[in-house]
Amino acid sequence: MMGNEQRFCKENTSVILDLPAWAIAALNDLPEYLASAEERMSAVLTFARMNFRHKTGGPFAAGVFERDSGRLVVIGVNRVLPCTCSSAHAEITALSLAQKQLGLYDLGAAGLPAYQLVVNWRPCSMCFGAVLWSGVRSLMIAGAGPEQEAITGFDEGPLHPAWRSELAQRDIGLQENILQQEAVEVFKEFSASGGLVYNARLG
Amino acid sequence: MMGNEQRFCKENTSVILDLPAWAIAALNDLPEYLASAEERMSAVLTFARMNFRHKTGGPFAAGVFERDSGRLVVIGVNRVLPCTCSSAHAEITALSLAQKQLGLYDLGAAGLPAYQLVVNWRPCSMCFGAVLWSGVRSLMIAGAGPEQEAITGFDEGPLHPAWRSELAQRDIGLQENILQQEAVEVFKEFSASGGLVYNARLG
Repeated sequence: MMGNEQRFCKENTSVILDLPAWAIAALNDLPEYLASAEERMSAVLTFARMNFRHKTGGPFAAGVFERDSGRLVVIGVNRVLPCTCSSAHAEITALSLAQKQLGLYDLGAAGLPAYQLVVNWRPCSMCFGAVLWSGVRSLMIAGAGPEQEAITGFDEGPLHPAWRSELAQRDIGLQENILQQEAVEVFKEFSASGGLVYNARLG
Repeated sequence: MMGNEQRFCKENTSVILDLPAWAIAALNDLPEYLASAEERMSAVLTFARMNFRHKTGGPFAAGVFERDSGRLVVIGVNRVLPCTCSSAHAEITALSLAQKQLGLYDLGAAGLPAYQLVVNWRPCSMCFGAVLWSGVRSLMIAGAGPEQEAITGFDEGPLHPAWRSELAQRDIGLQENILQQEAVEVFKEFSASGGLVYNARLG
């Protein structure tokens, strides 16, 4: 190129966050509506389990649903390793995909149904903030205790000590302990499989 | 398609996080090394200002540098509105682009130089977590006070009350008040321009 090569170009200044092929197929196999809390969490737990079994990310999944009707928008999975992106937690992936599908950055914009995020454990310190900024009106989690970190070794970071009341102050409803034991079983299977735990600053 | 249309496909299950054309050109105009703290912050402030002047996102930018040499990896900008993605804060954009360029999810992996994130204000509650997970060894910010929220109206969310000591515990150095007044001037210009403040749940 005779000395006019450029260090930065469109290709090295863009990142793609996507889902593995099995997840797209599994999404197409789901019904359009998942009415109960347990049906929604069960689907999320299946994606969390399939994600590490397929070696396409860590044992975490998150689904975006219309809160009242149960209409499925999308389920995302953890993509840190395959996308080489430390922010590609399941919540960030799911919320970003839902916002793309709906064509808006605020799932709480005027005229929309209330949206719900369903996750297979409490959010980490980053994803807690991502929930606040997403516009969802409801967060459903399988559990919030120390089990996840104790079983898998994944660092959740310093979650804000008042995270529950901070959600409430922003009118984001919280449902806890939905299929908690089933969620713990997914973490145990992950741990027994010897899956990579990708905490930061391993150097 | 005779009844076999699929609701989910590769196109609607992927998100692209990218930089506007002016930012790619501006990155190519920067020297490869920015030695001093002020030079690094000054470049970040220029990107923050250009971002809202070009209407390509909010008044925030973040740069990833080799901490000791000052080698520029990339500068990212806030892309919430153009990418319709509430997680596309400048820090997430910059860290994700840096990790893609370097081909790894952990900027603190063994054998790497120490990396630094330079941002034009303190992180929001989400980006605080993103800094922890990125592997950077150093965070440089222009300021951490109430000025940003007061001037622009952007909600920073409930940052962990012990965020400074949490960074220190994880061996992430913190440099504050680098070109603080210049950063405030960027926010004032944004505010005077009538730029959109995209806090969540505006409905």
